[in-house]
Amino acid sequence: MAAVGIKKVREILAARPDRHNTSLADRRAAMDAMGGRGKLPPNVDLKVMELGGIGCECIATKGVTQTNSILYVHGGAYVAGSPRSHRGLGIVLSEEVGAPVFMLDYGLAPECPFPAAVLDVVSAYREMRQRPDEFGAIALVGDSAGGGALISALTVLRDAGDPLPSAVACISPWLDLSCSFDSYTRLADTDPFLSKSGLLQDASLYLAGADPKNPLASPVYADLTGLPPMLIQVGSEEVLIDEINTFVDAGKLAGCHITLQVWPDMIHVFHAFRALLPDAVAATSQLAEFINSKFE
Amino acid sequence: MAAVGIKKVREILAARPDRHNTSLADRRAAMDAMGGRGKLPPNVDLKVMELGGIGCECIATKGVTQTNSILYVHGGAYVAGSPRSHRGLGIVLSEEVGAPVFMLDYGLAPECPFPAAVLDVVSAYREMRQRPDEFGAIALVGDSAGGGALISALTVLRDAGDPLPSAVACISPWLDLSCSFDSYTRLADTDPFLSKSGLLQDASLYLAGADPKNPLASPVYADLTGLPPMLIQVGSEEVLIDEINTFVDAGKLAGCHITLQVWPDMIHVFHAFRALLPDAVAATSQLAEFINSKFE
Repeated sequence: MAAVGIKKVREILAARPDRHNTSLADRRAAMDAMGGRGKLPPNVDLKVMELGGIGCECIATKGVTQTNSILYVHGGAYVAGSPRSHRGLGIVLSEEVGAPVFMLDYGLAPECPFPAAVLDVVSAYREMRQRPDEFGAIALVGDSAGGGALISALTVLRDAGDPLPSAVACISPWLDLSCSFDSYTRLADTDPFLSKSGLLQDASLYLAGADPKNPLASPVYADLTGLPPMLIQVGSEEVLIDEINTFVDAGKLAGCHITLQVWPDMIHVFHAFRALLPDAVAATSQLAEFINSKFE
Repeated sequence: MAAVGIKKVREILAARPDRHNTSLADRRAAMDAMGGRGKLPPNVDLKVMELGGIGCECIATKGVTQTNSILYVHGGAYVAGSPRSHRGLGIVLSEEVGAPVFMLDYGLAPECPFPAAVLDVVSAYREMRQRPDEFGAIALVGDSAGGGALISALTVLRDAGDPLPSAVACISPWLDLSCSFDSYTRLADTDPFLSKSGLLQDASLYLAGADPKNPLASPVYADLTGLPPMLIQVGSEEVLIDEINTFVDAGKLAGCHITLQVWPDMIHVFHAFRALLPDAVAATSQLAEFINSKFE
């Protein structure tokens, strides 16, 4: 079953238009359309609001039973993605964790260059911490570029002496904007989603001249001391696997509690393909369990 | 003061990129950006929801005192615009009328061709009518293409025997997709917003082969008997002025109560430029007063 599912997913991804023929506005629109305009399930309350001056969408399913909160940082290579593109994942997380999910509408490059995404996460998180009666314990969750941005935000918060979140979970985080690790070439033909050349283009829009190895842009090069308990889920077939393994090793050496799950045969942010991949359902459940174990 | 304001607005519009060099995705993104991502005033509750299976955003300011409702149909030539692009106008309407405003996220062309926009308005309105305890009396308000779509929707509802809304208000409605009236050429150099060639392009995307003089696409050619009390506000300088005058005459001959306000020196949907145009503030106030007089 899993083999059939991933084959179908690979067919879908292979049929996408070539990114070199696609404007950034088209890429953003296509990604938002994945979130399904006007397809809101009836059990979902969805509120547009602000956190720390940054737009966000609060997703609360009827299954919400607790006062704790998830702050979600979407992916899209720092140049695309939105609360709308990732709405489906947010709805599932709200249901499975039983908590509201705040999908951050952080600024995208090139309009908002480095380190705007990181600072937007910091601002939103700080406002949530300032209102504990409203938000309770906080889990910080993100995928791809959002995973990288949230880890950089954690280092900013740690250095500033802010209290850190109760739990952190990253799906396929992008941790090296210099794209230097061997898996970018070793898995180039295996990864149907990401390419080194495409990621370097997106990175240069975001960095706007900053050093790609600046630890605030590429947290695989950051000091990870004192970060909170973290779950990382990654597909074995994606070009990010080497930087994620290196990050996990560095984190453990620095004394962090990091759980790494490498899902065989799975690809970048495979959680997005729930209808086709049983592993997507299983991984999201395990992510929700991890968060709930830290909320207790 | 008004002269200074409209001069500044004209300068802003003249500086826009040429539409022939702009992809549809870029036009949509630019229009959405006008709505101001992440700039939600603190007194606004904004909920994403569905009405009749169509996505919409419900705007409710702290000033909401009544249980009546406004269904808003945004403009954008049937190919652009969204609840986000028109959020500012929705917030002001909610404040001034004291009612929640439901900004309909109807399907755009070319993805959703004629008569999708009209049928989406019908679906949303019918769901609101089916839940009178929740929505109360309903006003239908729209601008530009949204004004045309809502008038077509009214003719569908009338023909089907549905109860009609308590009040209808249109800002610069686009009522002739064949762009046949004299003002398209007479005011071509005066109107800084709309051009006949651009509108004909957008119309062909929406019509997808349908007759531009089909009354459901171009309600200036429709039977207007039995439509509810209506306020129409238009700028004297816009290319739509002739079809709007013709529509008002036809409506009055058919026995409708239509109030037409032609605002001197003003342009297409001038309500969007509140910060620069005192007339924008005045016109929106009068529109709100009209709705409230029908809610009583």
